[in-house]
Amino acid sequence: MADIKRVAVLGSTGSIGRQTLEVISALPHRFSVIGLAAGKNTDLLAKQINRFQPKFIYSQDKNPPTGAGCQFLSLEEMASHPEVDIVVMATSGKWGLKPTLAAVKAGKRLALANKESLVMAGEIITKEAKLNKSQILPVDSEHSAIFQCLEGEKQKAAKIILTASGGPFRGYSPTQLEKVTPEQALKHPSWRMGRKVTVDSATLMNKGLEVIEARWLFDIPFDNIRILVHPQSIIHSMVEFADGSVKAQLGMPDMRLPIQYALTYPERLENPNLPHLDWDKIKELNFEPPDFDSFPCLKLAIEAGKKGGTYPAVLCAADETAVELFLSKRIKFTDIPRLVGQALAEHKSTTQATPEEILAIDSQTRERVKQMVGDNR
Amino acid sequence: MADIKRVAVLGSTGSIGRQTLEVISALPHRFSVIGLAAGKNTDLLAKQINRFQPKFIYSQDKNPPTGAGCQFLSLEEMASHPEVDIVVMATSGKWGLKPTLAAVKAGKRLALANKESLVMAGEIITKEAKLNKSQILPVDSEHSAIFQCLEGEKQKAAKIILTASGGPFRGYSPTQLEKVTPEQALKHPSWRMGRKVTVDSATLMNKGLEVIEARWLFDIPFDNIRILVHPQSIIHSMVEFADGSVKAQLGMPDMRLPIQYALTYPERLENPNLPHLDWDKIKELNFEPPDFDSFPCLKLAIEAGKKGGTYPAVLCAADETAVELFLSKRIKFTDIPRLVGQALAEHKSTTQATPEEILAIDSQTRERVKQMVGDNR
Repeated sequence: MADIKRVAVLGSTGSIGRQTLEVISALPHRFSVIGLAAGKNTDLLAKQINRFQPKFIYSQDKNPPTGAGCQFLSLEEMASHPEVDIVVMATSGKWGLKPTLAAVKAGKRLALANKESLVMAGEIITKEAKLNKSQILPVDSEHSAIFQCLEGEKQKAAKIILTASGGPFRGYSPTQLEKVTPEQALKHPSWRMGRKVTVDSATLMNKGLEVIEARWLFDIPFDNIRILVHPQSIIHSMVEFADGSVKAQLGMPDMRLPIQYALTYPERLENPNLPHLDWDKIKELNFEPPDFDSFPCLKLAIEAGKKGGTYPAVLCAADETAVELFLSKRIKFTDIPRLVGQALAEHKSTTQATPEEILAIDSQTRERVKQMVGDNR
Repeated sequence: MADIKRVAVLGSTGSIGRQTLEVISALPHRFSVIGLAAGKNTDLLAKQINRFQPKFIYSQDKNPPTGAGCQFLSLEEMASHPEVDIVVMATSGKWGLKPTLAAVKAGKRLALANKESLVMAGEIITKEAKLNKSQILPVDSEHSAIFQCLEGEKQKAAKIILTASGGPFRGYSPTQLEKVTPEQALKHPSWRMGRKVTVDSATLMNKGLEVIEARWLFDIPFDNIRILVHPQSIIHSMVEFADGSVKAQLGMPDMRLPIQYALTYPERLENPNLPHLDWDKIKELNFEPPDFDSFPCLKLAIEAGKKGGTYPAVLCAADETAVELFLSKRIKFTDIPRLVGQALAEHKSTTQATPEEILAIDSQTRERVKQMVGDNR
């Protein structure tokens, strides 16, 4: 019988965290939950603790739930604990950075769903991962697709074709986009995801962050990454090789597949809960170029990625703050790229920034974006 | 510098043979032509000998061409010669069987374009290849795609989705098919291929033969192979894995890519002559189920494959004879499946047939099909 791998799920009450626990529940002969970490959704965390009986827990709540014999650890302690085999990093935003670094420094297998940590500190994280033989398995469907396409290949990708659903507002004019409400932005046509990433998918910021993520995960120049809008979200991304051959990975739009692959790699396991493609129903797959003019976040992200330094950290912080402001109806949908653009324009980048410096810039940027809105009111 | 691999091209004047020589010409630092074998296209063979200066030659012509210092070998001698590193088997029909067997028994890397040998004697060939550590690299675009999708995977395919262009008569009614001329059948919508395989693509017999080929190359039950019509011929085939993930290989419809991959595997090399996909031009990919009723060859082939024994040999021989009769305007397009079906219905299969017995059945079937037509005139 194969070993049972002990999994720590950081961000267990979020969308990816909950789906990770679904996958683990379906494969009890292969995985057990050793750690659960959550923010402030204490009710759900308490239920999860009761159900999975983890050894380690973490909560941001002042009154954290307790479990019989549970040990309270910090995120970094949990991500690097010797008894943990796999770290699923499903926290959102900047909270992922320090524990991600702790996990790679400890040489863990890291199932990475937190894209901000790679965007903010991709160079540091990938360098430490290499140094400590930590394996980073991407949980984003696009990056999982690319990883799967590269498996077994002797050479790197010549080009990456990152597919994008185009979001719920594909084809909208700038005037239509001005009137978009949070309720509309939270309805994604194909994916079931958290609130922040759903809005990022609507602005295409999410795709921009994924370009930066791909640059670090697959060590590929920005100019060799191409975005292709593919509304059905069946092809999750593609890789072109030196000889012109292209490999694609396809599947139903369901995050449980990349989550499971990150856990089971290099094996694949049957899981009756995972949906399969039905070729009786798929009549066509469509493709079109992205609309950089209507969705300026995409260009802002790629520019910030190319400039490097601390620009991507500013991008992340400004975007997260702007999305929060949009969801609380303080700003318009089209103000998101405007605020992010302004924050980037004002920024003076430092090179070789430490994680602490990056997090300081994150805080400053958040304050500055709030200030901008205060000025505008 | 990498070794220069010595390649013997059997069937060098045919479509695959000529394209193989194009690929080798583009990669002179990696490959040289050590052997050329052809049927009766002596003019072209003479030119090829002059251009590539092979050490070994073979010709079916009574007055074979000669080259300075060229040694005349039989197909089997050439396919198994110690100085040959890679055998490209691009002869058509039953002529491939014996040299294919010779190549795998000699443990060669075999770039296999002759599908009839695998259809007629798949069990013998794959058993001998395993025994003698001969690596069979498929040159058919579909099987190359499947091979590429399986590369690096720890498990076998759960399902194979074999794509088919549907041929030039996709959507034709049985009445329309009755009137099809050889000229129409020889115009394939997407691929540049030899005459026999082009007609087989029009009857969908080619896809049926490919199903049998896939069964042997990838050791997969017939029921796990699905045919999907995809008119653009961009996705060359797909593999579904145990977890529901699907990988596809894509490329322009150009045989030089699978030919080159079979030569360079596990590497991939840049070749400026190979076309790349242009995603500015690809707006949609379409899919539909195959029409088993209008194209009965497909069902006949799969049934023959499932029955096994010497049925697939009868299938091949009857089809090749019927296609020749059609091309010489002796029978109608719709007579092809009728004659093949009759030959299969009359056949009593033997199990564990030797290659000699298989070739004898081949000859008997050819005679019998000609007889059927003689009776019908």
